[in-house]
Amino acid sequence: MIDSARYPRLSRIDTPADLRLFEEAELPAVAEELRAYLIESVGRSGGHFGAGLGVVELTVALHWLYDTPVDQLVWDVGHQTYPHKILTGRRDCIHTVKQKDGIAPFPKREESEYDCFGVGHSSTSISAALGMAIAARHKAGSDGAPPKVVAVIGDGAMTAGMAYEALNHAGGMDPEPDLLVVLNDNRMSISEAVGGLTKMLGRVSGSATLNKLREGGKKLLGDKNKPPARFVRRWEEHWKGMFVPSTLFEQMGFHYTGPIDGHDVPALLGALKTLKTLKGPQLLHVITTKGKGYELAEGDQIGYHAVGPFDPAKGLVAKAPASRPTYTEVFGDWLCDMAVADPRVLGITPAMREGSGLVRFSKEYPDRYFDVAIAEQHAVTLAAGMATQGAKPVVAIYSTFLQRGYDQLVHDVATQNLDVLFAIDRGGVVGPDGATHAGNLDLSYLRCVPNMVVMAPADEDECRRMLSTGLHHTGPAAVRYPRGTGPGVAVSAGLDTLPIGKAQLRRRGGPLALLAFGATVAAAEAAGAELGLTVVNMRFVKPLDRALLLELARDHDGFITVEDNVVAGGAGSAVSELLNAEGVLLPVLHLGLPDAFQHHASRADLLAEAGIDTAGIRAAILRRWPHLVHAATPALSRAAGA
Amino acid sequence: MIDSARYPRLSRIDTPADLRLFEEAELPAVAEELRAYLIESVGRSGGHFGAGLGVVELTVALHWLYDTPVDQLVWDVGHQTYPHKILTGRRDCIHTVKQKDGIAPFPKREESEYDCFGVGHSSTSISAALGMAIAARHKAGSDGAPPKVVAVIGDGAMTAGMAYEALNHAGGMDPEPDLLVVLNDNRMSISEAVGGLTKMLGRVSGSATLNKLREGGKKLLGDKNKPPARFVRRWEEHWKGMFVPSTLFEQMGFHYTGPIDGHDVPALLGALKTLKTLKGPQLLHVITTKGKGYELAEGDQIGYHAVGPFDPAKGLVAKAPASRPTYTEVFGDWLCDMAVADPRVLGITPAMREGSGLVRFSKEYPDRYFDVAIAEQHAVTLAAGMATQGAKPVVAIYSTFLQRGYDQLVHDVATQNLDVLFAIDRGGVVGPDGATHAGNLDLSYLRCVPNMVVMAPADEDECRRMLSTGLHHTGPAAVRYPRGTGPGVAVSAGLDTLPIGKAQLRRRGGPLALLAFGATVAAAEAAGAELGLTVVNMRFVKPLDRALLLELARDHDGFITVEDNVVAGGAGSAVSELLNAEGVLLPVLHLGLPDAFQHHASRADLLAEAGIDTAGIRAAILRRWPHLVHAATPALSRAAGA
Repeated sequence: MIDSARYPRLSRIDTPADLRLFEEAELPAVAEELRAYLIESVGRSGGHFGAGLGVVELTVALHWLYDTPVDQLVWDVGHQTYPHKILTGRRDCIHTVKQKDGIAPFPKREESEYDCFGVGHSSTSISAALGMAIAARHKAGSDGAPPKVVAVIGDGAMTAGMAYEALNHAGGMDPEPDLLVVLNDNRMSISEAVGGLTKMLGRVSGSATLNKLREGGKKLLGDKNKPPARFVRRWEEHWKGMFVPSTLFEQMGFHYTGPIDGHDVPALLGALKTLKTLKGPQLLHVITTKGKGYELAEGDQIGYHAVGPFDPAKGLVAKAPASRPTYTEVFGDWLCDMAVADPRVLGITPAMREGSGLVRFSKEYPDRYFDVAIAEQHAVTLAAGMATQGAKPVVAIYSTFLQRGYDQLVHDVATQNLDVLFAIDRGGVVGPDGATHAGNLDLSYLRCVPNMVVMAPADEDECRRMLSTGLHHTGPAAVRYPRGTGPGVAVSAGLDTLPIGKAQLRRRGGPLALLAFGATVAAAEAAGAELGLTVVNMRFVKPLDRALLLELARDHDGFITVEDNVVAGGAGSAVSELLNAEGVLLPVLHLGLPDAFQHHASRADLLAEAGIDTAGIRAAILRRWPHLVHAATPALSRAAGA
Repeated sequence: MIDSARYPRLSRIDTPADLRLFEEAELPAVAEELRAYLIESVGRSGGHFGAGLGVVELTVALHWLYDTPVDQLVWDVGHQTYPHKILTGRRDCIHTVKQKDGIAPFPKREESEYDCFGVGHSSTSISAALGMAIAARHKAGSDGAPPKVVAVIGDGAMTAGMAYEALNHAGGMDPEPDLLVVLNDNRMSISEAVGGLTKMLGRVSGSATLNKLREGGKKLLGDKNKPPARFVRRWEEHWKGMFVPSTLFEQMGFHYTGPIDGHDVPALLGALKTLKTLKGPQLLHVITTKGKGYELAEGDQIGYHAVGPFDPAKGLVAKAPASRPTYTEVFGDWLCDMAVADPRVLGITPAMREGSGLVRFSKEYPDRYFDVAIAEQHAVTLAAGMATQGAKPVVAIYSTFLQRGYDQLVHDVATQNLDVLFAIDRGGVVGPDGATHAGNLDLSYLRCVPNMVVMAPADEDECRRMLSTGLHHTGPAAVRYPRGTGPGVAVSAGLDTLPIGKAQLRRRGGPLALLAFGATVAAAEAAGAELGLTVVNMRFVKPLDRALLLELARDHDGFITVEDNVVAGGAGSAVSELLNAEGVLLPVLHLGLPDAFQHHASRADLLAEAGIDTAGIRAAILRRWPHLVHAATPALSRAAGA
């Protein structure tokens, strides 16, 4: 329970209705308590940190002024919503964030009526809020005023195409939608924000964009002593304040207000009170500091984006060198080594330099490294364009975010059979970030695409070999690996490749064969060893090792496929398709992820729930083949009966 | 062969090198011949028409000035490339466009070295061109100057998020990429362009955006007699000419030139010659008229976007009322009827009003109709936002374009189990438009998504019932229907629903059961009747009719699944997964589309090639079960032996 001595105000706020009982003058003090409580609780639990600290005042102002949950408050990305969760009934369980059965790290409709739109990916908020505004007005009809709708979006998220699509639609609508977009400008996405928009928003004098504009203005306006030229000088003075950022949004049809200090509660409320009375699409530009109020986080915004538990008095402690590298690190090292070996290699990330393991590459090969901002569609087609010129582009992307570039993968890369390698991180079960970040679908949505080669490594060294294999292969290829560490196999220094479409027989047994893909191989091998079965590390989801499968089909009584992808259309179903195409009749048991969105929990918990850890695999086999296994390995009959 | 008397210049141009032999002064005459030839040949063959007429002069100017195919000319969407194809070696076969073994209606790398980037979907050109510019410079190293790269993109395509992502990346890069983007501004996409950008580009005086800007300027600048206020007036004067469109692009980091008349060859060459010498990202704004030079097309830009064969002297002849409605029309009528019955229904299209059958709905329910521009990502999340407020949004979208909204379907709709209906047109084999427009993957990429209900109608009336079913269902649902007409079943007037997950037994026979999905039911039924087999119209890809499948498995010797989707992960593989999950061992033959991108040809040709027309289905069954069928229906033994 919250300490009411330390938090005399916050301890009385169970819902925003309680917040609204406070006088306006007390709100800065409320914000101060909220920030202190956030630092304390995230220190205890870990979680997303810097973004929440940046919007403490904004969260207080919005919930005080707007009638939530009737009014709709849509948070973009959602990792900044810990303060929102604390104010909306989840104060006392905020420390359970990301844990199994604890609260979700992002807004989630089923968790709270105050979470009006679930999220996790960026740049959806304007679209969702616009849909709400339209539907609410449509429904309201003569019943009275529709609820207010507010979207809060960061400048990083504003670089994504879908935010622009939504601005373009909202700004061009007739009649105008009533909608407030709060642009929370902290000059960061998770890494540093990049791109023309960022430059435009940037308040750094002497920027290239400013100079260009200045030159363009001069050219247009002629004699510098004439009034227009004087205006250009005045324009420059206004630049840092407000003029130029407004133009973009005004041109899109929004009414622009700002920029204002997002940590100044009276200033925020002053602006918001006016905006609340205005019709039409409004944009409020607030300037905030990621990590605000916690000095260490302000000084290391990337490091404090998301944290493990830590002592707020001491800050983050440098992690002890891990005993084994993550797959992300294996990829990052491979890319650097491959860049030495092959000058055609170029690396692309949509704003996930740290998460995708590209920090070293970005430093060692700055001219071959391309952070395209949060722009998955562009990232993939950029790679396609590069490939037409004989380059070897590598797109480093999370599985869940590749969904954003799916059409580009199909239409621009695969249709043209272009030489692009997709290094897909966070494939399969991701865990604590919840369903919005899960990589449960990629094997299904990738293997249906013609020309694709799809690989899933069983261990770290194989991951490296598969990356080399994909790069050498002429045509599109994907290597899909899980979050975190693998079984701990030593990673070789070479750049060897694997034969395409060849699986690896791990153990010969019988009478069943376990065909395991990627991250499930270790568990399958353990279960197979216990039961005396044949075990195959399939390596390739596409193309499958047809010869080996037909050979195994001849001398086994059944197959068990195991994958950390949904069963629907996944790697296992590819095995069935092959057997069916060959006219081979054999019992097949498909193990994989369920046809449901998994809640947040640890990877281990989720793998166990899905029944694809060692115990689950063994249990499933014994349920299906109690007699067969009994006959094959009498010692196991007790387990089968249990 | 081309008539050299009528086309004295064009008949001498076999490649752009021949074009470059002409004096600059002769180029307008070349353009005139090219336009006349285009009108003549498209009149003969049908095809995309208005867009090509709009870029005749631009095409001549670019190929004359740039050293194609060394320099890279990237056309957005690609339906405007008939003039390009005529100048690049395909003059004498342009009349075979869209036909089997004829030339493709879009740029295609394997067709010509002048088609440097294949396309069909919109808004990819800046990404691809930027990738080319980066890779070319990277490769060039010290070898000399890299090739020039030019992207030509329409104002409609500029509304899509990925174009903005590419502008943002290109404009923010350091070092700056050398890249020319030609904005071909004809104020049209296929329908009319919509949205804030279009308003901004619009040169219609008194626009809302202009008024807003004017007001904003006044507020900012104070006393109207002071110099800044004078500037505002001057600004307004410049508005229609050049100032404001430039600002958006300049802010993104591009150097803006224009607008210029895109039908004035000397003006085009004047601008292009200068731009060719400049470094950094350049944008040239040209104004063109879709259908230019053919009066009827200028007057009906939507009607002449793509045409069938016609007599240029007479123009398009009003089509005789079709004997049966297309699926598109069935959907359009259903939506209007459902809108009467349920005031919660809202209709959304990403810029495909005509193609998706929404013209009537847009006229009868203008306040419930939302054309969001070419913005599939936004379209889907807009619907999700609407659904949170109790609306019943219907997203009308082509299968191939839904790939652009895949993440939004997963992350915003399905994860939250929101009530959005996807009316998916052009599912399965599409035909003459080629691989870029094929809807061959949707059943695979949809059925792996939890919470989805996926339906495929066997006929027109069933399509209507499925749409009603999807709308009534609480949660996301998709009805996926093919291009063109169906078997001609009369469409009922009601709004009846079907029981979810229930298939329809069409005929009982044996010893095999044909399980057919969607557009393949008619052919499967015919083949099944010939062979005396059981035939099921499966109706639901997800959820499958488990009870019926298990019942049929008990008294049949095998299943044949038939679908107009790739076999990989498709509806048939769902049947195998179900049998495997139930421990039922039964031979299954999967018939469907190949694991390859199909070339352009008629739908009938492509269905036959894939072996899912009646003859193909029968032949495949007889290959697999010659003896079974022989035994069951002795009369067929001759066919089996043939």
